[in-house]
Amino acid sequence: MMVNTNLNICGKFLLIFSGIMAIPLAISLAFRQPDSMAFVTSILITALAGICLSMFFKAGNSGLRIRDGFVLVGLLWVAAGIFGALPFYFSKSVPSFVDAVFETVSGFTTTGATVFASVEDKPMGMLFWRSLSHWLGGMGIIVLSVAFLPRLGAGAMQLFRAEVPGPTAERLIPRIKETAKVLWIIYAALTITAIFALLLAGMNLFEAVNHAFSTMGTGGFSTRNLSVASFASPLTDWVIIFLMLAAGINFTLYYYLFNGRWSLFYKDRELRYYLATVAVAGAVITANLFFTGTYASLRESIRHSYFQVSSLITTTGYSSADFNLWPPLSRGILMLMEFIGGSAGSTAGGIKVIRVLIVLKFIRREFYRLLHPKIVRPVRVGNKVIPEEMLSNIAAFVFLYILIFVVAGLLVSAMGVDILSAFTGAAATLGNTGPGLNKLGPLSNFGFLPAGAKLVYILCMLLGRLEIFTFILFLVSPFTSLAQILKAK
Amino acid sequence: MMVNTNLNICGKFLLIFSGIMAIPLAISLAFRQPDSMAFVTSILITALAGICLSMFFKAGNSGLRIRDGFVLVGLLWVAAGIFGALPFYFSKSVPSFVDAVFETVSGFTTTGATVFASVEDKPMGMLFWRSLSHWLGGMGIIVLSVAFLPRLGAGAMQLFRAEVPGPTAERLIPRIKETAKVLWIIYAALTITAIFALLLAGMNLFEAVNHAFSTMGTGGFSTRNLSVASFASPLTDWVIIFLMLAAGINFTLYYYLFNGRWSLFYKDRELRYYLATVAVAGAVITANLFFTGTYASLRESIRHSYFQVSSLITTTGYSSADFNLWPPLSRGILMLMEFIGGSAGSTAGGIKVIRVLIVLKFIRREFYRLLHPKIVRPVRVGNKVIPEEMLSNIAAFVFLYILIFVVAGLLVSAMGVDILSAFTGAAATLGNTGPGLNKLGPLSNFGFLPAGAKLVYILCMLLGRLEIFTFILFLVSPFTSLAQILKAK
Repeated sequence: MMVNTNLNICGKFLLIFSGIMAIPLAISLAFRQPDSMAFVTSILITALAGICLSMFFKAGNSGLRIRDGFVLVGLLWVAAGIFGALPFYFSKSVPSFVDAVFETVSGFTTTGATVFASVEDKPMGMLFWRSLSHWLGGMGIIVLSVAFLPRLGAGAMQLFRAEVPGPTAERLIPRIKETAKVLWIIYAALTITAIFALLLAGMNLFEAVNHAFSTMGTGGFSTRNLSVASFASPLTDWVIIFLMLAAGINFTLYYYLFNGRWSLFYKDRELRYYLATVAVAGAVITANLFFTGTYASLRESIRHSYFQVSSLITTTGYSSADFNLWPPLSRGILMLMEFIGGSAGSTAGGIKVIRVLIVLKFIRREFYRLLHPKIVRPVRVGNKVIPEEMLSNIAAFVFLYILIFVVAGLLVSAMGVDILSAFTGAAATLGNTGPGLNKLGPLSNFGFLPAGAKLVYILCMLLGRLEIFTFILFLVSPFTSLAQILKAK
Repeated sequence: MMVNTNLNICGKFLLIFSGIMAIPLAISLAFRQPDSMAFVTSILITALAGICLSMFFKAGNSGLRIRDGFVLVGLLWVAAGIFGALPFYFSKSVPSFVDAVFETVSGFTTTGATVFASVEDKPMGMLFWRSLSHWLGGMGIIVLSVAFLPRLGAGAMQLFRAEVPGPTAERLIPRIKETAKVLWIIYAALTITAIFALLLAGMNLFEAVNHAFSTMGTGGFSTRNLSVASFASPLTDWVIIFLMLAAGINFTLYYYLFNGRWSLFYKDRELRYYLATVAVAGAVITANLFFTGTYASLRESIRHSYFQVSSLITTTGYSSADFNLWPPLSRGILMLMEFIGGSAGSTAGGIKVIRVLIVLKFIRREFYRLLHPKIVRPVRVGNKVIPEEMLSNIAAFVFLYILIFVVAGLLVSAMGVDILSAFTGAAATLGNTGPGLNKLGPLSNFGFLPAGAKLVYILCMLLGRLEIFTFILFLVSPFTSLAQILKAK
């Protein structure tokens, strides 16, 4: 049975995962931090679980079926969320295991929503583990969205990789490995560049590494309580704006760049609309901030505007200012940015620019058809025709996204949280951004929420990160399997 | 040119319209109210405009083209909004003409959002004109959605009228007239029933007629400042709950009922989902109100819950209580109800139950297709297959609805209105409901808004009421006509 193979792979994954935990342990030991024992215990438990799973469940040799692929991906993310929570729990950094899981899932899904009222009092091992989870999560997402999901026919990404062949079972694994390798090299190279840039902007090494990890993963965890605002440095702000925007670009485009295929980079439609959206939204918010007198100088208005726009559209969630205090228009546009999200195939969350673009073109097409019922006109992006099945898929994705947002907002409202906080919190976790508005604003945290609300938001983070369909199919899979077993008898 | 025909019809429409204004004038004279002169002036101006238009522009004898149909419908609604505003303006009931247009468009679109802080001090002619505008608007909508729009291929309604033939030019006008006649008889019969029911519940004749008009049009204007809450009568509340729900049912189904085709009525899918939604939402809110101690007795919780659910899903907008003070979950569910809206072919606004249902089924189909890429499975409602083009049309409609909601919310935010008020106000006007939350809650009014915000909401009301596509095609038509003229030269 495929369940065995999946659990076997999950076991092997946990063994590697326990090995990765040795990195924050090393940091903790090097800086003589009090959280070393928490990491040792976590590593042992994770490794043990990994050994048990891979010993008890043997991998079959049948190929990956579509459904199994979805289940495996979901399984690995849930495993990372639970076992990655152990260090937080054992170090007593959090009041409950739900809080620990929230922080971990927020890390690996590159959301950046935190339950900590203060992070500056936390041991360095913990802080590094948070940033590392962003970075690893980002890496996982890129592979998932650029190398894996397109082969399963899910989403819009396959469009933008003309050379991807159809998903034939025997070629699936080697192609993923090969693509993943190239992407990881690019990701690592960008991260190293980011570390140097942040060092030059004045951060110390520990801060630079943490913020580089967090930025490249478009996560948002910071080592400072006031996030990036605490550095109070315009240079740092601009460096991070540039890095965030870079992290929100489809990584396939970097691959083209490194191959010298420049035109594929700068002619990319999604990239153009992404940058245009940032430019326009930033300009409108700048005007709004300046003319309402939120900031005295135009220069400050520009910087804070573009920082927050870049942070929200790439769903990073850093703040250079408390945008919760900004005028309604600016806050509204920022929320819109978080729904749009970055480019497909980047570490950013949200609906993604390309999907939004296609939905807009789809609406225009329907107008045209209303006036000319007999003329068939396909939806195009650039000179590529979007097949009707893909349009349906994207439309269903966007509907589901909105539906989950509404349901999550209502569920959290049901726990007595005010409407604006509950709904912007849902948007922020589903979009993997982090901060919402009101009580969940950029200077607040998610710690005060009841456990039920945290669970709802944990689900949102996973749903958003795994492009909804993947995660829902993972969730329903045990039930459909059960139904099949019952049917067979 | 078709423009001439449209303006000619518009002129004739204004002549009839001025005749209709004689009804509130008669009320005003009968009760010796101070607003008689305002009506006389308005009637004269409207009649004069009507005569001028129908004299200067001669009707052509070519058939109705699709685009012309859209333009005509949009034109008549705008004309009603502007000329219907004259009595408010001339009686000095409003501080500006924008306010007068807001109130009138709110009336004819059966929205029920008001700029008046108090209505009890307004002359009876004005009050009657407000209620009458709801009733006439509701009548216009039924004809539009059941008799006219399906022939243009717009929307989901045609599905549910199996006997409608294809839109051939020569049969269009007589069929519309015939269908309209039957529907108006049903509408009038229901209204008379409503008047008697409200009289029996204890209202006086003037109040009963006004509230019957307002309820059957799912409008929401009341003759009392505290809306239905001011009657403080459980019986009145229940009568109005029943009447609101009745007005939110597809009028074609009443036609079946009167023809003795019972099974077509009670087997209707949309009707079932509509009533099920009301039942479930009402139960959840009842529990929320009772357990949070908002109301001491279960009986009161049930009544207020079902009143507000019925009011919001039918987009009437009456309130039996200030739901703005209710717990977040209840407020959230009410907002959701207003997005869902009533049945297609009723006087209710919103997205409509059938569209929501089809979108949900569409999402389920996409899941199925993800797992079984090679199996073609259509979306069905009952045993009817929904054609793919209709799915696209409905998907585009819902996207546009959400898009307009977001853009309108942002625009009003830009005028300094807080986010919750701005966005719930957009939902309430686009959904033709009336009250929003916070500063635009059921006991507040739209009067304090800047003129720009009122104009945005006026557009929302028209867009929502005319099923978006119709009104946008009307708006863009002058530009496309201009483009064609320029091209021809």
